[in-house]
Amino acid sequence: MESEATKDDGIFLSCLKRLVGKVMDTACTAKKLGQDDPRRVVHSLKVGAALTLVSLLYYLKPLYDGFGTSAIWALMTVVVIFEYSVGATLGKGLNRGLATLLAGALGVGVHYVASLFGNIGEPIVIGSFVFLQAAISTFIRFFPRIKARFDYGFLIFILTFSMVSLSGFRENSIIEFAHKRLSTILVGGFTCVVICTCICPVWAGEDLHNLVALNIEKLGDFLEGFGNEYFRLSEDEDCNSEKSVLQAYKSVLTSKNTEEALVNFARWEPGHGKFRFRHPWKQYLIIGSATRECAYRIEALTGCLNSEIQAQVEIKSKMQEECMKMTSECSKALKELASAVKQMTKPSSAEPHIENSKNATNRLKSLIKSDLWKGTELLAVIPAATVASLLIDIVICTEKISNSVHELASLAHFKSAKPKVSPEEKTEGSELEIIELPSCEDCSSVVITVHESSDALPASANNRHMPL
Amino acid sequence: MESEATKDDGIFLSCLKRLVGKVMDTACTAKKLGQDDPRRVVHSLKVGAALTLVSLLYYLKPLYDGFGTSAIWALMTVVVIFEYSVGATLGKGLNRGLATLLAGALGVGVHYVASLFGNIGEPIVIGSFVFLQAAISTFIRFFPRIKARFDYGFLIFILTFSMVSLSGFRENSIIEFAHKRLSTILVGGFTCVVICTCICPVWAGEDLHNLVALNIEKLGDFLEGFGNEYFRLSEDEDCNSEKSVLQAYKSVLTSKNTEEALVNFARWEPGHGKFRFRHPWKQYLIIGSATRECAYRIEALTGCLNSEIQAQVEIKSKMQEECMKMTSECSKALKELASAVKQMTKPSSAEPHIENSKNATNRLKSLIKSDLWKGTELLAVIPAATVASLLIDIVICTEKISNSVHELASLAHFKSAKPKVSPEEKTEGSELEIIELPSCEDCSSVVITVHESSDALPASANNRHMPL
Repeated sequence: MESEATKDDGIFLSCLKRLVGKVMDTACTAKKLGQDDPRRVVHSLKVGAALTLVSLLYYLKPLYDGFGTSAIWALMTVVVIFEYSVGATLGKGLNRGLATLLAGALGVGVHYVASLFGNIGEPIVIGSFVFLQAAISTFIRFFPRIKARFDYGFLIFILTFSMVSLSGFRENSIIEFAHKRLSTILVGGFTCVVICTCICPVWAGEDLHNLVALNIEKLGDFLEGFGNEYFRLSEDEDCNSEKSVLQAYKSVLTSKNTEEALVNFARWEPGHGKFRFRHPWKQYLIIGSATRECAYRIEALTGCLNSEIQAQVEIKSKMQEECMKMTSECSKALKELASAVKQMTKPSSAEPHIENSKNATNRLKSLIKSDLWKGTELLAVIPAATVASLLIDIVICTEKISNSVHELASLAHFKSAKPKVSPEEKTEGSELEIIELPSCEDCSSVVITVHESSDALPASANNRHMPL
Repeated sequence: MESEATKDDGIFLSCLKRLVGKVMDTACTAKKLGQDDPRRVVHSLKVGAALTLVSLLYYLKPLYDGFGTSAIWALMTVVVIFEYSVGATLGKGLNRGLATLLAGALGVGVHYVASLFGNIGEPIVIGSFVFLQAAISTFIRFFPRIKARFDYGFLIFILTFSMVSLSGFRENSIIEFAHKRLSTILVGGFTCVVICTCICPVWAGEDLHNLVALNIEKLGDFLEGFGNEYFRLSEDEDCNSEKSVLQAYKSVLTSKNTEEALVNFARWEPGHGKFRFRHPWKQYLIIGSATRECAYRIEALTGCLNSEIQAQVEIKSKMQEECMKMTSECSKALKELASAVKQMTKPSSAEPHIENSKNATNRLKSLIKSDLWKGTELLAVIPAATVASLLIDIVICTEKISNSVHELASLAHFKSAKPKVSPEEKTEGSELEIIELPSCEDCSSVVITVHESSDALPASANNRHMPL
């Protein structure tokens, strides 16, 4: 008997251990979710607060006497339309409000028309209207444009229309019903929008803006790391942080849906922070698509990185200089573009790098033309040639990204960047950067800057022309 | 005066024309939407029918006496959970039903606990419970696994819990309230599920299955057309249907989200048609990811197709045979895989084509090794070398797709394909196909088949071994 009890204890203990393990796992996931984006915790608290606020309709006697059980619609509105970003909440709120108003009015109208048909005719007329509008509205929801922005509105339209016209069949106070539903929904919607917008708002537009900039930066990071990885320049092979940089671009490949959703939300948002109301959000889709195109080439490039067939070391070393130049200049250009997008300045500082990468492309081409390669077996050249060709493609893609960012800059009236020349750039691109500048005074300032920077002064490089 | 009237008429007419034009445009879009997928029209009618059926709760006096105004919940349930596919509807229905049950029970419990705290304590206790559960549930919705499958359930949980516990504060018949809400939701949910499943059901699983097969086929189509396009074999350059085949693969690049959504829906579905209940839906994600990897290479390949720098014609012609062989064999393999997935048969017929494409790869490599290329300028070789290298990658990707399809076939117990040898395949792969077959009797049947097929008998080729 005792041994059986011990056995039972053992089973119980192992179960308990497994349970504790699972709970710990979940707690870890929760902690990570919160740390990755603390706005999630704030959002959860905001939902709780909005719901508690709307509960006052129940707690306070005068309010409850006014709304009665209809207070439930306010509660429901809060739960259903409170979304993570302001744009999504506003979009759902406006959809719900307008659809309720319109469908309520139509429902009341149908109710009066139906009541003309007598006791037997009424349910038939109402029934056919409900059937027809449900079928038609459901079909309209398949239209891609409607689906993107007004899907929820049509859902609420079907719901409210059916509810109002059917309630009219059993209740006499149909106007009161429609009125109560509308006013409680407005109370709920208003609460949501105020709390969502005023307490630590999450702007879909800002998220989109940062996402697009981050994606461009990820490609820049990859290209920065690629040269070292491909030509085996870095000493320690198992450097994990390096590897993760080379993997980060993967998320760019599948970012299309996120970007589209964010654009749809952002279009509902009012002006906020650096963005005015009609910010050209759709241009971000064009930048995003150019970024993805570049990411596809990079994906093909990693195929070369991990391929069993590698080019001979001597061939690699022959083209190393120009390839490194191409990747590093593209990387710099992409990073400049990303930072220009982030800071909403004109991306002119990326241009010299793109020029440099194009020059490196031409030099690579003439290098390949030269007799340097004679006597090498062609099979050994192929992997290197593929890398070269993909890099040439990537230079073209980088220029495309640059063009789309320029278009965004002109559409959204980005301000001009302060001319800045950091010590590293001076040696490679300073003469091109001077060409960029508009007037003689600025030129002299930059020339002096260049001389100054050769003394390797630290930090505040971008303010160095100020003393003039 | 007359001229002004004419002018007004003119403006009116042009407005009318524009309006008519817009209406016609919309009608065209609607017609196209319906023609592209007639199930959309059926779905719209089904929603109308379900809503009309649930309206009977209002029309029929005995039913209305039972449910009263709670009939509204049934209406709402139908509008909200009736989704396009059975899986989505079932998922939402189960989420809604279970969440309502659980939250209703908890809400009643909290109501009783709160009532112990007296008149002043009660709203405070209820308020803090509502706040806490809303905040916690909202945070849980951020967990990726929960978001994928139980997002709607948690939404309804928050809603029902708040509604039931708050209603208890004002109404005494809280049990009746919870009971009515649950039973009307069950009526609405049941109506939805029955109509959605029984009348022309749209199965997410079937859609997923077909989508994955179609995506593989699109890659096959591209590779079939690519050879002709790259080596300019087709006569008419502006052949539009050819171009559209070369563009179709683009949708594969961004199919990830659709596939993931369909998998989540499909997992809710019961066994149907060819699929049993626990069909390995997740394996489709692996196939999809392998397919996308291949599509990324193809995207890079189109870069070569449209590049300004083209390989010299003579170089192209030197590698034409092997490249054509590689693309055509890969294309055949992919199409066999697609048709195997579609028909749920073992994809053994793809293997000889993969073998052939590997052999062609080896021949291409040795061709490149040979002295054939001597004296050619390397710059002219690079574009051709890139194409060759990408094609080699694509052969590897094709094998990966094949492996993932094989895994699906073994996980889902696909039946063996009937050995079929069509006249075209006989000349290229018949000896390999015979190797595939298990026993001597079958061999003889196929040998005879091969002989028969040389007489070019039409159609029912795959049944030709039956007479034995």
